[in-house]
Amino acid sequence: MTEFAFNKLVIFGVGLIGGSLARALRERAGLHGRIVGVGRSAQSVARALELGVIDVAAACDDAAALARALEGADVVLLAAPVAQTEPLLARIAPFLDARTIVTDAGSTKSDVVAAARSALGARVAQFVPGHPIAGRESSGVDAALPELYVDRNVVLCPLDENAPEAVERIAAMWRATGAAVHRMSESQHDRVFASVSHLPHVLSFALVEQILEAPDAQLKFSFAAGGFRDFTRIAASSPEMWRDVCIANRTALLAELDAYTDVLARFRAAIDASDGAALEAAFARSRVARQEWQERGGTRIPGDPAAK
Amino acid sequence: MTEFAFNKLVIFGVGLIGGSLARALRERAGLHGRIVGVGRSAQSVARALELGVIDVAAACDDAAALARALEGADVVLLAAPVAQTEPLLARIAPFLDARTIVTDAGSTKSDVVAAARSALGARVAQFVPGHPIAGRESSGVDAALPELYVDRNVVLCPLDENAPEAVERIAAMWRATGAAVHRMSESQHDRVFASVSHLPHVLSFALVEQILEAPDAQLKFSFAAGGFRDFTRIAASSPEMWRDVCIANRTALLAELDAYTDVLARFRAAIDASDGAALEAAFARSRVARQEWQERGGTRIPGDPAAK
Repeated sequence: MTEFAFNKLVIFGVGLIGGSLARALRERAGLHGRIVGVGRSAQSVARALELGVIDVAAACDDAAALARALEGADVVLLAAPVAQTEPLLARIAPFLDARTIVTDAGSTKSDVVAAARSALGARVAQFVPGHPIAGRESSGVDAALPELYVDRNVVLCPLDENAPEAVERIAAMWRATGAAVHRMSESQHDRVFASVSHLPHVLSFALVEQILEAPDAQLKFSFAAGGFRDFTRIAASSPEMWRDVCIANRTALLAELDAYTDVLARFRAAIDASDGAALEAAFARSRVARQEWQERGGTRIPGDPAAK
Repeated sequence: MTEFAFNKLVIFGVGLIGGSLARALRERAGLHGRIVGVGRSAQSVARALELGVIDVAAACDDAAALARALEGADVVLLAAPVAQTEPLLARIAPFLDARTIVTDAGSTKSDVVAAARSALGARVAQFVPGHPIAGRESSGVDAALPELYVDRNVVLCPLDENAPEAVERIAAMWRATGAAVHRMSESQHDRVFASVSHLPHVLSFALVEQILEAPDAQLKFSFAAGGFRDFTRIAASSPEMWRDVCIANRTALLAELDAYTDVLARFRAAIDASDGAALEAAFARSRVARQEWQERGGTRIPGDPAAK
């Protein structure tokens, strides 16, 4: 394993994810490199500067400032909405040093890889796609925490073009935050997260939507209790972000949604037929799997041989 | 409002729900009536006796003990699985004093009312259907708490045959535990809970089932995080109980499931068409409704004029 060190790190979008990386590297790993935050405007990163999360604030729309920001950068992290990946990379490309490694934090990967190939051409070799699996209910740089990534998973989806040292350097950066780093292909990544993250969000939004459409919606909400609360917690998530995720990961998400609809149709038939044995067997399987998942520590997979 | 008092309360099934009522009336409301716990066998209520939650333990299958238990009872609460309502009431009927009021704690009501009419005939006037909306992840009398019902809702579904005083007495009993009491018809009750409780359980079980059926199930579970955790918490619920609820509330549940499937089909079409505007509008409506629900205090409806 390589130790991570850097002279200059550039973060595009210093919110919860980018800000927590900066704080983790500085406060948790004790690293002293220079951290530059880039926003759509200098104002949008002013708060990060004020909080001391970054050393320098730059505006993306100022070519000279952008050139200075990127000069001599070891690592660039894109932590802006996924839909901005291609325009951002196109904006960065002219100023990108040959030795700089670019990575991202987007929650979908096939679309990000396509955007990177389109914007960077042959220099896509400098781009290592990544996805830290971490979040909080609050967002923005004020919510950033140095320990956000401790014991969390980060997935890297290395490209054939990437030099192994480039991938290892990004892996070392995330390990320095306390995360476990895993590698998989971008299509595998997108299938996995369509299933365990994107689909549940769609299902949760759909339940609230369905109740809203009912003539007795207010009565129903009045008696919603703990089960509803947990099931719909993710329906309070950002509409813009989840709109983008659904579209960016459309193919994998539709496949999972169709498989889910099939299971639901089987459950419907069992309920309609009062087939208690079939319902109990399915519910019992789910309960055991959910309990085993919980007992393994949920998201944490200590000693997982896939963690590098 | 009537104050509640009792000389003798008989609880069939002294687990979390029945045990918490006993503890609330004694420890929270300071009432000193005699509390009799009845189980399938005397042994099944021995723990409740040992903990001091009840004063006397009786076995349901011992006719003489059952007769003694029911003699002079003010209130009888059925807190056994819903499917046992009819056999239990049939067993109780021969020993039921004319002045005793029977109520229940079942999470479905149309089936319970049908069972009560069948088992009690004209004496169904003595039966006031009820549903306390409270629970914990743990079950059994060891999990019973005197404050389980504080600020929670209890729904009563009075029958045309019930004397108003009988309904009011059961309402007063639940108010003494700290709960807010609401009244609605059994069909209204079953629609409301099919929507906000039974359907989410089915949807949550179905997600875990769908992942289990995938060839890469273990990989998917490995990367399941916070969204999955909240969404599937209720998939760890009792398979037997939810099997019974699904069948008991079949008609209302299927109606909600079909309405949900329609919403899901619309979401599918929007994702397939990359219709970001439609997705964002729906997600935003859900988010606002979910946040408003949370801000109103979730399950608590302080000052709700429907609370009596």
